[in-house]
Amino acid sequence: MTETQLSDLPLRDELHGQQPYGAPQLSVRAMLNVNETTYDVPAEVVDAIAREVRTAAQSLNRYPDREFTALRRKLAAYLTSESGAEIAAEQIWAGNGSNEVMQHILQAFAGPGRTVMSFPPTYSMYPLYARGVYSEYIAGTRSEDFAQDPDDVAAQIRAHRPHVVILCSPNNPTGTALSLDVVAAAYDAAQDSQTMVVVDEAYGEFRQPGTLSALTMLEGRPRLVVTRTMSKAFALAGGRIGYLAAAPAVTDALRLVRLPYHLSAVTQAAATAALDHAESLMANVERIKQQRDRLVTELTAMGLRPYPSDANFVLFGGLPDAHRAWQHLLDDGILIREVAIEGHLRVTAGTEAETTDFLNSLRTHLNG
Amino acid sequence: MTETQLSDLPLRDELHGQQPYGAPQLSVRAMLNVNETTYDVPAEVVDAIAREVRTAAQSLNRYPDREFTALRRKLAAYLTSESGAEIAAEQIWAGNGSNEVMQHILQAFAGPGRTVMSFPPTYSMYPLYARGVYSEYIAGTRSEDFAQDPDDVAAQIRAHRPHVVILCSPNNPTGTALSLDVVAAAYDAAQDSQTMVVVDEAYGEFRQPGTLSALTMLEGRPRLVVTRTMSKAFALAGGRIGYLAAAPAVTDALRLVRLPYHLSAVTQAAATAALDHAESLMANVERIKQQRDRLVTELTAMGLRPYPSDANFVLFGGLPDAHRAWQHLLDDGILIREVAIEGHLRVTAGTEAETTDFLNSLRTHLNG
Repeated sequence: MTETQLSDLPLRDELHGQQPYGAPQLSVRAMLNVNETTYDVPAEVVDAIAREVRTAAQSLNRYPDREFTALRRKLAAYLTSESGAEIAAEQIWAGNGSNEVMQHILQAFAGPGRTVMSFPPTYSMYPLYARGVYSEYIAGTRSEDFAQDPDDVAAQIRAHRPHVVILCSPNNPTGTALSLDVVAAAYDAAQDSQTMVVVDEAYGEFRQPGTLSALTMLEGRPRLVVTRTMSKAFALAGGRIGYLAAAPAVTDALRLVRLPYHLSAVTQAAATAALDHAESLMANVERIKQQRDRLVTELTAMGLRPYPSDANFVLFGGLPDAHRAWQHLLDDGILIREVAIEGHLRVTAGTEAETTDFLNSLRTHLNG
Repeated sequence: MTETQLSDLPLRDELHGQQPYGAPQLSVRAMLNVNETTYDVPAEVVDAIAREVRTAAQSLNRYPDREFTALRRKLAAYLTSESGAEIAAEQIWAGNGSNEVMQHILQAFAGPGRTVMSFPPTYSMYPLYARGVYSEYIAGTRSEDFAQDPDDVAAQIRAHRPHVVILCSPNNPTGTALSLDVVAAAYDAAQDSQTMVVVDEAYGEFRQPGTLSALTMLEGRPRLVVTRTMSKAFALAGGRIGYLAAAPAVTDALRLVRLPYHLSAVTQAAATAALDHAESLMANVERIKQQRDRLVTELTAMGLRPYPSDANFVLFGGLPDAHRAWQHLLDDGILIREVAIEGHLRVTAGTEAETTDFLNSLRTHLNG
C-alpha cells in the first residue's frame, strides 16, 4: 500500500499547498529569534509553580474551574498595578496563549463574511488568525519609517470598515509603541462601522518610561480590547497564557465561542504561581530593557539603522545583505530573526553576555 | 454611564441569544454528573506530575516543543498496548482537551459551506463544534432503542454526504459501544463523498471485554480518525489533554490549522507523567467498570431500564418524572445528569460508596 499524502485527503481548498507556521526550533548558544526572555526562570518561581501544580494535581480527576476565577482576579490586580488603570476581574479573559485569545475575539466578532485588518509590517500571525476563522484579511499601510499617525489610521479604517482592527503596540517586528492618540483616533473612526479595536500589547511591559498602556483607555470604550501575554515579561512562553482586558460584555461574548474548560487546572495553577512572583520576574524586565537600549546605541554606532524600541527586541536596517549576516551569526551559534523587510533583521534583547556576543559577531561580519 | 450589554456589541448574528455551554459546577458530596473519575488521583501520579512539571518549569521562558515529540511517542506506545493495533508517533495528534482536537479536525475538513453529521442522542458538543467552525450540522437518526446498525448508518451517510461524520463509541449519553461493522459500513459508505469518519472513543478504556477499538481499523483507511482523551480513564479531566490517531497525512492537515505552540510545556509534562503511570491509573478503571456493571444490575432490579454500558456511566429510563428524581438526588447531595430524553437520567459510575449512596437515595425516592 502506498502512503497516503495530504493531497489525497478532503482538505479545505484554501489550505492546499499551505505550510504550517513556525520559526525554526534550533538549539544554539544564543537563541535570540522569538523574543523569549533568555534569563533562567528564577528558582523561587520554579518552586512556586511546582508547589501550586502539586496542589492542583490532587484534583486533576475533576474538570477545571471553567471561569478560572482565581486567575482572573490575579490578572486584574496585576494589570491594575502595572498600568495604573482600574481593571476588574470581570474584564479579564484568558486562553492558551494570546493566539487562542485572539482566536476567540475573531470567532465572536469576525468569522466568515467579515473582515480583519492590521498594518504590516506587523505580527505575522494576524493574517493566519483571520484565515483560521475564514475571515478576509485586509492589509493596511504604514508610512515609510513604519510609523502610524492618527489621521492616516483613521482614514484607512473609514475606508475599509473592517469588523475587527488589530493595532500592535509595541509593534512586532518594528518594536515601536503607538502613542495613545493613534488608538483614540482608530476607536473614533471605528464608531460608524462598529469595528472592534484590538490593541495587542504582548510586549507592553517593555515600553519606554512615559508611554501609557491602552488599558488606561478602556473606560467608556466598549469596543476596545487590550491583549497581553505571560510569554514575554513573565518569562512563561512555555506556559501558554495569553489574556485580555475589555468591557465585561466582551468577555460574555467570548464565553459563547470558547470551548468549555479551555484552560487546564495545571495552566491556571502555573499562571497564578507566576503572578504571585510578578515582582521578581519584573526585575529581569528592567535588565532586558537595558540591553535593548544598549542594542539601539551600539547598532547605531556600527552605522546600522535600529528602530526605537519599546519591546524586548530591536529591528535594524542598513545591512547590505541581511541573509548573509543572519547566516554568519547562526554559524557563530547566534540565532536571530529574518524578517520580510529587505536589509533588516530582528534581534531579541537577551542577557548582557548574549548581547555582547551578538554585537561582536555582527561587528566581525561587517568588518570581514 | 450605563453598562454596555452584549447586545450592544457587534457580535456575529448567529451568536445573538446563545448561552455558553456548561454543566453546573456545584460542590456536593457525590458529583456524578460529568463522567469524571471520582477516585482521588493516586499519590504516585501526583508526585510524578509535580516532578515533571518542576523540570519543565525551569525552561518555561522558552516556547514549548511545537511537535510535543515526547508526548506523542508515549501516547502512541500507550494506544498500541491498549488496543493491540500498531500505532506510530507520526499518527498521533493532541490538543487541550478532545474539544480542541475535534476543532482542529473540523477546521481542516469542515468549516463554512461544509457539513458535519452525528447521530443524536449523542455528545451535545458536536453541534457546537460545528457551529464553532461555521459548518452546517446534520442530525442523523437512531433506532428506537438508540442503537445503530450498519445498513442504516451507511444509508444516512449516502443520503447526506457530510464532509465529516462523527460516530461516538461508547456513545454519550447512552453508554453503548458500536460494533466495528458499523464503523466499517460508515467508512465504506463515505468513500463516494470522501467523508472523514471520526470515531470518538473518549470512553474507550471502559468498553466491555471482547469489544474492539476502532484503532484496529486505521490501517488502510486514511479518512478514519479515532479520538481519545486523558480526561476519563486517566483521571485527568483537569489536565485537558485530548488526542487522536489517524494516518500521518491527517496530522499534517491538522498542523495547518493548529495555533502554533498550542500545547504548553506544562501540559506536555503533566500528560507524560500520567502516561508513565498508566498501569496504576488503569487499576481504577477496573474498579469503575465493576460499579458500572453493578449500576446496570441494580437499576434493572429496581424496575428501571438501564442501557448496556461500555462507558463509565449508565443511562437509565423508566422514571415517571426524571426531573423530580434528579432534584431528590441533588437535595440528598448527589448530582447526576439530566438529559434531553424523557424519563431518563445519566449517572457516572463513581466509587463503591458513591454508587451505594446513589442507589439508596434513588430507591428511597421511588418508594416515597
